[in-house]
Amino acid sequence: MALIVQKFGGTSVANPDRIKNVAARVAKYRANGDQVVVVVSAMSGVTDNLIKLAKEIMPLPSEREMDMLLATGEQTTIALTAMALHALGVAAVSLTGAQAGIVTDGVHTKAKIQNITPKAIHELLDAGTVVIVAGFQGQTPQGQITTLGRGGSDLTAIALAAALKADLCQIYTDVDGVYTADPRIVPSARKLPEISYDEMLELASLGAKVMQSRSVEFAKKFGVVFEVRSSLNDNPGTIVKEETKNMEDVVIRGISLDKNQAKVTLVAVPDRPGIAANIFKALADAAINVDMIVQNVSHGSGAPATDLSFTIDKPDLLKSRKVIENLKHEIGYHEVNSDEKIGKLSIVGVGMRSHSGVAAKMFETLAREGVNIDMISTSEIKLSVVIDLAKAEAAMKAVHRAFLG
Amino acid sequence: MALIVQKFGGTSVANPDRIKNVAARVAKYRANGDQVVVVVSAMSGVTDNLIKLAKEIMPLPSEREMDMLLATGEQTTIALTAMALHALGVAAVSLTGAQAGIVTDGVHTKAKIQNITPKAIHELLDAGTVVIVAGFQGQTPQGQITTLGRGGSDLTAIALAAALKADLCQIYTDVDGVYTADPRIVPSARKLPEISYDEMLELASLGAKVMQSRSVEFAKKFGVVFEVRSSLNDNPGTIVKEETKNMEDVVIRGISLDKNQAKVTLVAVPDRPGIAANIFKALADAAINVDMIVQNVSHGSGAPATDLSFTIDKPDLLKSRKVIENLKHEIGYHEVNSDEKIGKLSIVGVGMRSHSGVAAKMFETLAREGVNIDMISTSEIKLSVVIDLAKAEAAMKAVHRAFLG
Repeated sequence: MALIVQKFGGTSVANPDRIKNVAARVAKYRANGDQVVVVVSAMSGVTDNLIKLAKEIMPLPSEREMDMLLATGEQTTIALTAMALHALGVAAVSLTGAQAGIVTDGVHTKAKIQNITPKAIHELLDAGTVVIVAGFQGQTPQGQITTLGRGGSDLTAIALAAALKADLCQIYTDVDGVYTADPRIVPSARKLPEISYDEMLELASLGAKVMQSRSVEFAKKFGVVFEVRSSLNDNPGTIVKEETKNMEDVVIRGISLDKNQAKVTLVAVPDRPGIAANIFKALADAAINVDMIVQNVSHGSGAPATDLSFTIDKPDLLKSRKVIENLKHEIGYHEVNSDEKIGKLSIVGVGMRSHSGVAAKMFETLAREGVNIDMISTSEIKLSVVIDLAKAEAAMKAVHRAFLG
Repeated sequence: MALIVQKFGGTSVANPDRIKNVAARVAKYRANGDQVVVVVSAMSGVTDNLIKLAKEIMPLPSEREMDMLLATGEQTTIALTAMALHALGVAAVSLTGAQAGIVTDGVHTKAKIQNITPKAIHELLDAGTVVIVAGFQGQTPQGQITTLGRGGSDLTAIALAAALKADLCQIYTDVDGVYTADPRIVPSARKLPEISYDEMLELASLGAKVMQSRSVEFAKKFGVVFEVRSSLNDNPGTIVKEETKNMEDVVIRGISLDKNQAKVTLVAVPDRPGIAANIFKALADAAINVDMIVQNVSHGSGAPATDLSFTIDKPDLLKSRKVIENLKHEIGYHEVNSDEKIGKLSIVGVGMRSHSGVAAKMFETLAREGVNIDMISTSEIKLSVVIDLAKAEAAMKAVHRAFLG
């Protein structure tokens, strides 16, 4: 008998039939004698509809009232999920975030979980009841309803698993687990049986999109082992956990490709202290997220100057160019170029720490494919290159073949 | 400066534009310096949709989970209403039933309000904030979400007015107030400036349908004076309050016509003790609501027998006939007749207590119109007759002319 936390996202509970499927899965674990806590999101589309309603009333609604509004989405799902379990003869009770004892700070629409008092949940579990908890929401110590922001339901599941000392935390999604690469691009990609938190974090922030970084960071902090698996079949998924010794035997865990970035280059920026700070402060003030930054000596004549390149999300390109052009007088660069046709290819693996020659092998592979490298950036367990978008998928396949077979 | 509780029903908050209208009305009172507590229902259609979703999962869902589900309807409206007030620059905060301090018993889907702790509301009002409370819902002392059943939002408003010792409680609806008769049938019908609780109760239970009896009874019990008025214009409505001396000067306050009843007659029922008890117990067991009951000596020969007639809601007719036919052997009546083409016409007024000749005038008026009376039933402040449905509207007009001009 195990205590299991199972989280189902919006598409898994999109309509009554899918909610019945979720209930059937939960019932199977329950029949096996396990204690089950289920965390659900709002039915897909519901949150967007509520946001649309709010915007019809006011373009920038109060965040406190947005939380009051959006919390109804998950509350609807928990009641329906409990009913679906009743229909199968399984004892079940739904709890709002507040009723489940999830206490947050007061930062509406992106509250942080402060603590969880799982007394009510434990009592219900001990009585043989399945407990359905509304994901994404909590309550301040003063009784205000809060929501946790994007990926909040994953966070609820992982935080509950930590507070309940659950034996298992399962994040059900529409993919089978975490793969060595996107199988739609690399047909030989394999599902990983396990991956470390740090590798998962690098993959998540690199566009693998299985989970928000926040939830993985929380799991790492509290040592919550969780499994990412599909709600559409019974295949085992990928276990995400602390790095173990044998994980380092594998040099590269996975490869990701981000096609949604654009590159901006300032040519011949005067080589004066404070210039980079100026530029990136202005971009941050405009709420533009900068990813890679590379600086090189400029090849022009005249005063000492550098070329400065950085990458941003494609939709921010126009805004970024405007910010940079407004700085032209102040900074005095020669010109600004941008390129939307780039791909960021990254290899990730804790084994990179202990294996040498990884970068060399990557560059060799790309050279053999005739792929030119625009930018390079590295971390302890990651190596990213910016390359021509047209060649990115072929490059990804070649790199996968070279490192992962 | 007054403390005003204003309640708006589902059609008044059916979409963002109507919610903005509600906010504009509230803002006007606020600008006038009044403290305002707003009680809102779910947007019309929302509750029905949620019930439909639940039924797709399970025909008879758990009542606790139905409350969890339905409570989201009002929670959505309060958030949107608060936003609409913000859009007008008015400070406003939404509160769920639980947050507003509304404590109920644990009878899910038809909970009774046990007490209200209006501390949070008072603090917000004192800070100059409009408070928007979710109607129809509360919380048990153990923190379970409950709903109050049909007409629950009116009840929330009246209970809050009592707990807050409000100066005024306004129930906004889609009619201008309470009329002497339905203006669609009697064009000369007039809006009543005031009416007593007891008269309102008789009219409510007689099909005037402005408000559920429960809320009026609650108001009477706690002496809450309230006004029924339209959310579509600024006309003063009808004040509902304790009977005052001068109210008795008016003999008849109003006339109502209920066309939704059917009559069942058992002919030649043996005149034995316990027979009536048998019949009405069997009907009650089948959850059939019996309204008028009339018994008369039967005109047949043989053993002493009576004719027994009663009225029920039309949709219950078939079920009633079945119940009665199942009793035929046990009771031994001669035959059972039924009639769906009846109308129940009632005159109501506290003045009937002190004025004689009311019944005579009613019967005379009907006789003059050539209307035959099928059944008669009276209370201290009401006189009802069952007549031919085809003549009911003409009869109503004649009676209105005779008593109310």
